[in-house]
Amino acid sequence: MADKKMVEAITARDVDFAQWYTDVVKKAELVDYSSVKGCMILRPNGYAIWENIMHELDRRFKETGVENVAMPLFIPESLLQKEKDHVEGFAPEVAWVTQGGTEKLEEKLCVRPTSETLFCDLYSRIIQSHRDLPKLYNQWCSVVRWEKTTRPFLRTTEFWWQEGHTAHATEEEAEERTIQMLNVYADFCEEMLAIPVIKGKKTDKEKFAGAKSTYTIESLMHDGKALQSGTSHNFGDGFARAFGIQYSDKENKLQYVHQTSWGMSTRIIGAIIMVHGDDDGLVLPPRIAPVQVMVIPIAQHKEGVLEKAAEIAGALKAAGIRTRIDDSDKNPGWKFSEQEIRGIPLRVEIGPKDIEAGRAVLVRRDTREKREVAIESAAAEAAVMMEQMQADMLERAKAHLAAHISEARTYDEFKDAVANKPGFVKAMWCGDLECEMKIKEDTTATSRCMPFEQEQISPVCVCCGKPARKLVYWGKAY
Amino acid sequence: MADKKMVEAITARDVDFAQWYTDVVKKAELVDYSSVKGCMILRPNGYAIWENIMHELDRRFKETGVENVAMPLFIPESLLQKEKDHVEGFAPEVAWVTQGGTEKLEEKLCVRPTSETLFCDLYSRIIQSHRDLPKLYNQWCSVVRWEKTTRPFLRTTEFWWQEGHTAHATEEEAEERTIQMLNVYADFCEEMLAIPVIKGKKTDKEKFAGAKSTYTIESLMHDGKALQSGTSHNFGDGFARAFGIQYSDKENKLQYVHQTSWGMSTRIIGAIIMVHGDDDGLVLPPRIAPVQVMVIPIAQHKEGVLEKAAEIAGALKAAGIRTRIDDSDKNPGWKFSEQEIRGIPLRVEIGPKDIEAGRAVLVRRDTREKREVAIESAAAEAAVMMEQMQADMLERAKAHLAAHISEARTYDEFKDAVANKPGFVKAMWCGDLECEMKIKEDTTATSRCMPFEQEQISPVCVCCGKPARKLVYWGKAY
Repeated sequence: MADKKMVEAITARDVDFAQWYTDVVKKAELVDYSSVKGCMILRPNGYAIWENIMHELDRRFKETGVENVAMPLFIPESLLQKEKDHVEGFAPEVAWVTQGGTEKLEEKLCVRPTSETLFCDLYSRIIQSHRDLPKLYNQWCSVVRWEKTTRPFLRTTEFWWQEGHTAHATEEEAEERTIQMLNVYADFCEEMLAIPVIKGKKTDKEKFAGAKSTYTIESLMHDGKALQSGTSHNFGDGFARAFGIQYSDKENKLQYVHQTSWGMSTRIIGAIIMVHGDDDGLVLPPRIAPVQVMVIPIAQHKEGVLEKAAEIAGALKAAGIRTRIDDSDKNPGWKFSEQEIRGIPLRVEIGPKDIEAGRAVLVRRDTREKREVAIESAAAEAAVMMEQMQADMLERAKAHLAAHISEARTYDEFKDAVANKPGFVKAMWCGDLECEMKIKEDTTATSRCMPFEQEQISPVCVCCGKPARKLVYWGKAY
Repeated sequence: MADKKMVEAITARDVDFAQWYTDVVKKAELVDYSSVKGCMILRPNGYAIWENIMHELDRRFKETGVENVAMPLFIPESLLQKEKDHVEGFAPEVAWVTQGGTEKLEEKLCVRPTSETLFCDLYSRIIQSHRDLPKLYNQWCSVVRWEKTTRPFLRTTEFWWQEGHTAHATEEEAEERTIQMLNVYADFCEEMLAIPVIKGKKTDKEKFAGAKSTYTIESLMHDGKALQSGTSHNFGDGFARAFGIQYSDKENKLQYVHQTSWGMSTRIIGAIIMVHGDDDGLVLPPRIAPVQVMVIPIAQHKEGVLEKAAEIAGALKAAGIRTRIDDSDKNPGWKFSEQEIRGIPLRVEIGPKDIEAGRAVLVRRDTREKREVAIESAAAEAAVMMEQMQADMLERAKAHLAAHISEARTYDEFKDAVANKPGFVKAMWCGDLECEMKIKEDTTATSRCMPFEQEQISPVCVCCGKPARKLVYWGKAY
């Protein structure tokens, strides 16, 4: 039976969150494991979510002037080594191609873990004058980082992402772009995915290999662990100096460019699952859901039922709602379960009695709220219910986030919070790497970010007692 | 100066076609060479064409029920080896990953040259019942084939494509899908790219490694050489047997599935260039052009010119026309050249005298036809001119194709045709590999396809004189 998988229930979320996650990912048919260790397959249900994410992010990027390109998959070893910090960060985790066809390569090639070096190489050739600036390039691709332990979406050897790489005439412009793209990510998460985020700067320890500063958006999962959901880096002129990317300014003097990069990956699908999912499976925010409404006929063998279901589906589609009809020979209970596991925001139930009464039943995936509506107004009502659902999902996620931020003024308070209060812990920090390392060792919590909205909740570092310099969000993280 | 590149003229098409091609590709800024031998970079102008191709093909695929997925980049050696013919065809030209992070891999991984084996591996796990069929999956990705000599778009070590992979219950259904997708490609080429194609079947010698039959669309370049522009393969149950992909039918009996695959790649951009380009550069069919109209202000420093240009650009955009305005500080002559090199279908010239007269000048890229139109009707006129241009481009390409098909009944006629009449040569064939090999050796022409529209132009094989079995299109090819 095709339905065999449905029989085995999903592990309850509060019993074993990790197992619940694995169950949902598998039963919603988002991914499958592949024959290659650590690599995942994005199945149609999973890839369709990524397609919607790509489509919407790409639109937002282009509104800011970004253009897409495609860069090679391979990076020669010598190119990867040009920027010292960068190679140190990535070389230990890349895959190496040493043979092409029947010949052993003279220089080995790594499969790109990220493409700064390739973009720099291109920029060094195509940027000559201030007229060539800014360059605002992006690419959609997959990258490879050799990982020991992997989990679908969250950490895999290969993952899909976009990487934006820009070059600017001035330091200010580069910084402005870095923050602009972070805001694009934050707005996207909130508006499309109903995921509120904390915006801030990474500490030096946590910043990207080769960056001057790294900015991040951090979201909070249902289990109280944080997920870095998008990053934006300001490189200053470090890469430009390593790669010799110079332009002649209006006075005809040679200047180094200032660069940024920024990325969001399939990881964000993990966030959607862990922020919104429940014991019955996935719950997709309507705006990003590949299928927004599933029309499910009841007693579909009876005369007129399938026709009416098709009519309703047609009206929904005509209203611009992504709609499917499940007219398979499974019974309605199975169909409800499948729609719920897949997280389809709304279902329409339509059976002989409904048809007689001229109504259809609309059921929300998140709250199970049912509404009986006149068949003629099903499309309009569905649109209203989905708008409400999107708004409610964001509100619930915001409330969950707010309820999972604690403050610590002393180290005892801090250790207690990390151990007993899932979520972010706000605490002051002196700025020393030593304290950051000690906190991680003592509690497993890492510095998630120094939020843009700084407060001084205490005059001293929560760890060492020296004068505090920054408010930091700390937490356990994926 | 940013315009330095413009000073060097493009080599005339009829002087040196290969050099003309390279010049166009480079000066239109479609690609750049990378630090990795044989790998190209798709720059914004090139990638934007590919984006439009992807968008439109993807829409057409989905209309036929196709769903997108993403498969791993790597194939373990043992998986690649499962289907005998397939591995023989591809193993000599793949790139091998032998090291991951700091460890030497136990089993080496190839970078996918194509993904049949990965799809088969997935299908063997997820197909159990006839209810699971058909599976109609596709992915957009890049693939790698280690090439000795490369040319942008036409033959590169890495290229971008889509690969569709389907599984069906019956042989008939698989054959139907194979032909259906070939027709999708053919219609796409004709309707969107203004490129007429010959549809047909490949000989056994030319078919895909592991296929039962390969179908192809062949297009003809300006220089009379053929370009294989898209292929669709019927695998029968060969891969299914090698990978154990079985389903239980309605009588609960185990059956092997029947499979297809089909692909179109960035190679098709080479066809657009070589079918439509002229001595001034690229000529893009309006339907696929990323920028359809460039508005170029004349004497833009004069009062009101830039405003009027922006007004016209706004009206064009509002009419759904992809429009840019070139308000850079270059002189109009440079701007015209750039628009021509990039193949932008129409330009609008607007200067002080035009504004006074209430008109704008529209110029077609292909014919240079100029039309003076009232400013208010510029958008409507532009739409009409582009429709006409698209139709004219197809007609010209069809006429070129028709004028470059010759027929040969004797081997002398055949050799003369290949040597002296650029284009396809139609000739009868006995069906023996030996004749096919001899023809290639004697003339360098290969069998392009056995066209669906068969005729019998002679009763005997053009090469050996034995009874003829098939009409074949022969030709030199990229």
